[in-house]
Amino acid sequence: LERGTMRHGQRMINSLHPAEIASLIESLPPAKREIVWEFVDPELEGDVLVELNEEVRAELIGGMDADELIAATEGMEVDDLADLIGDLPETLNERVLRSMDAQDRERLSAVLGFEQDSAGGLMNLDAVTIRPDVTLEVVIRYLRMRAELPDRTDRLFVVNRYDQYLGGLDLTRLLTEDPERTVGEVMDSTVEGIAPEAPAREVAKLFEDRDLVSAAVVSSDGKLLGRITIDDVVDVIREEADHSVLSMAGLDEDEDMFAGVVRSARRRAVWLGVNLATAFLAANVVGLFEATIEKVVALAVLMPIVASMGGIAGSQTLVLIIRGIALGQVEDANARWLLIREILVGMFNGLFVAGLVGLAAGLWFHEWKIGAIICGALMINLLAAAITGVSVPLVLKRFGVDPALAGGVILTTFTDCIGFASLLGLGTLFLT
Amino acid sequence: LERGTMRHGQRMINSLHPAEIASLIESLPPAKREIVWEFVDPELEGDVLVELNEEVRAELIGGMDADELIAATEGMEVDDLADLIGDLPETLNERVLRSMDAQDRERLSAVLGFEQDSAGGLMNLDAVTIRPDVTLEVVIRYLRMRAELPDRTDRLFVVNRYDQYLGGLDLTRLLTEDPERTVGEVMDSTVEGIAPEAPAREVAKLFEDRDLVSAAVVSSDGKLLGRITIDDVVDVIREEADHSVLSMAGLDEDEDMFAGVVRSARRRAVWLGVNLATAFLAANVVGLFEATIEKVVALAVLMPIVASMGGIAGSQTLVLIIRGIALGQVEDANARWLLIREILVGMFNGLFVAGLVGLAAGLWFHEWKIGAIICGALMINLLAAAITGVSVPLVLKRFGVDPALAGGVILTTFTDCIGFASLLGLGTLFLT
Repeated sequence: LERGTMRHGQRMINSLHPAEIASLIESLPPAKREIVWEFVDPELEGDVLVELNEEVRAELIGGMDADELIAATEGMEVDDLADLIGDLPETLNERVLRSMDAQDRERLSAVLGFEQDSAGGLMNLDAVTIRPDVTLEVVIRYLRMRAELPDRTDRLFVVNRYDQYLGGLDLTRLLTEDPERTVGEVMDSTVEGIAPEAPAREVAKLFEDRDLVSAAVVSSDGKLLGRITIDDVVDVIREEADHSVLSMAGLDEDEDMFAGVVRSARRRAVWLGVNLATAFLAANVVGLFEATIEKVVALAVLMPIVASMGGIAGSQTLVLIIRGIALGQVEDANARWLLIREILVGMFNGLFVAGLVGLAAGLWFHEWKIGAIICGALMINLLAAAITGVSVPLVLKRFGVDPALAGGVILTTFTDCIGFASLLGLGTLFLT
Repeated sequence: LERGTMRHGQRMINSLHPAEIASLIESLPPAKREIVWEFVDPELEGDVLVELNEEVRAELIGGMDADELIAATEGMEVDDLADLIGDLPETLNERVLRSMDAQDRERLSAVLGFEQDSAGGLMNLDAVTIRPDVTLEVVIRYLRMRAELPDRTDRLFVVNRYDQYLGGLDLTRLLTEDPERTVGEVMDSTVEGIAPEAPAREVAKLFEDRDLVSAAVVSSDGKLLGRITIDDVVDVIREEADHSVLSMAGLDEDEDMFAGVVRSARRRAVWLGVNLATAFLAANVVGLFEATIEKVVALAVLMPIVASMGGIAGSQTLVLIIRGIALGQVEDANARWLLIREILVGMFNGLFVAGLVGLAAGLWFHEWKIGAIICGALMINLLAAAITGVSVPLVLKRFGVDPALAGGVILTTFTDCIGFASLLGLGTLFLT
């Protein structure tokens, strides 16, 4: 019976697509991952490995011997293999290269020559090319002779005799236009090729804006190098999105939910350490006003309100600006406009929130002066939050630091320190 | 000269794709938006409107008269028109419907019958259908007669005489297989149709996992309703990603960076108000210990550290779990495993961070007892952060609340209150 269930499980797993198997493995604790992995068909293993996040991938690769790994890499697409090969043990790289035929080896090294997150790293080398001077009928006969076309071929690429890219011919046009016409007459030459150095993010934007399914990668001397297909672009978009959410919490997008406790703890400790430094800075500001707090304890009670309101308002501005930068919609040209707008929004909400809190605090402590002081401190802090929220990401970007990663820490450091300083400073001036 | 530049600008704008024009408009302040919008070709206007975020769209629609709007909707794809029509003034809806031919009107109302973020709302009605019993040669002749195929047609859909979906025929196979064979022999019947009620998020997952370019939407009685294409799926993925980043800061994904100050301020004030309530809760906890703070002011100085460390550690857990839920990787089955893991990670980092802070605080205030107290408070708070970080999103999900929206506020309320209570509580016990 037990063996029967096992065989049933195996069938079920291998009826899934590689990406689905990868997702299943990622959602299991390590011990169960091994069991599922044992079940996966050897010919699917390579494609599943590519879909896994880096941590889990390394874990599974560590448990495989050389022959298994080489078998797994057989039959993989070149762009996927290029992603995977960096994670294999070095001694194995050579064996994998040797097991390939000369053409594939050449192709692989062409892709490996580009950054993984560039157009060159994303491209596949399976573009089907045709010449502009033949008729559509000849093209159709040629395709029938090939007997197979690569996955997600929606267009053929037109090149001259020097392999220079001239344009694309959609299969839909190939099928609907008069077969007597030549490729050159029917092809679409308005679609420009993508430079291999173009960052993956820009490639994704292009595919999104122009609703592309595949596009040509073209070298600076006009040669067709390969093609990028939408499935890889979708992965880029998903990873980018993951990255921006996770990096705000100081996490890596390859973070494995089920990784070993010590490893996770150590990695997160780095982020806690960074934040600890900023928290001590804020504590230090409070420390300057010990004498005031001793006299007016109410101020200590109100500290969390000033800090948290500043942090929240600042994050709203920060997130908007970071997204604007990512979409290419925030630039120096409109930054000043945005700054003024956010300051105005901050002032409006300052009036509203500060008034409310001031009133509540005045009633709470039966002392209108305390109300007035927290009101003033909140106004100052919400203004500071607006200014930091706009300027921190722009400054970080100029220095080449990812605003999503560092922006939040820097922002809350500012809003905490300014909030405490204004609350306790005003308290020192008017209450002692 | 001025007029010459204007014409040049107009040409430049209209050489862009609708999505690029939309992005340009979004990145401009309102006054300049009007100018660019004036330049856009009337036949592009509808497609640009669809690509704009809702706020900006409403703003531009408000400035157009009825005839302009009706002209803009002409020639639009049915799924795009379905998105747009809800934003038109009601009096206009009827006029738009009347200006369409009977078939398009019927199609539009079919799409409008489904939720916008379901498979039915995403689908287009331009699927090209063929019968299983004809040969490929006949199909090719039929396509040539049609003379045009809809954009992003990568496969034809095979239906029986009752319009029931049987499978798909990829154009690549149509071009490479023996033309004497029948559609039924060559078609791929393993790809199941998508139910029109399927949520957009699930559709996106399916396209991602199976690398699809288009897929059939099929009703419960097996009828082919339409097809979904990858370009709309990419938009879903992008919006989802935007949503999860922005909603953590209490922002709407349609937030317009250049919206009027008062409108933005009012909307953000709602979120500030929610957070204000939780901040008062935290302040209230501090208020319980006024007597202790008066005696040991050092505790007030250390308050920001306990609160911020708890918040940071909790956010890390929270973000991981929210992402796991979104990917479908966190479920009740593995929730307990994750909880234990996060508690262990919290304990490890508790030991590390609390030890460090305890030492620093002991030295700072020349009093080892204060060091011991903040050490204990941090340990308690990091444990609480791990538990809340795992359980809050799971509980919210069960109640149908979006964890990305409410999770952060609830988490920091917990970590603030528990942090202050443990610091000041331990202080009261051992220092007074």
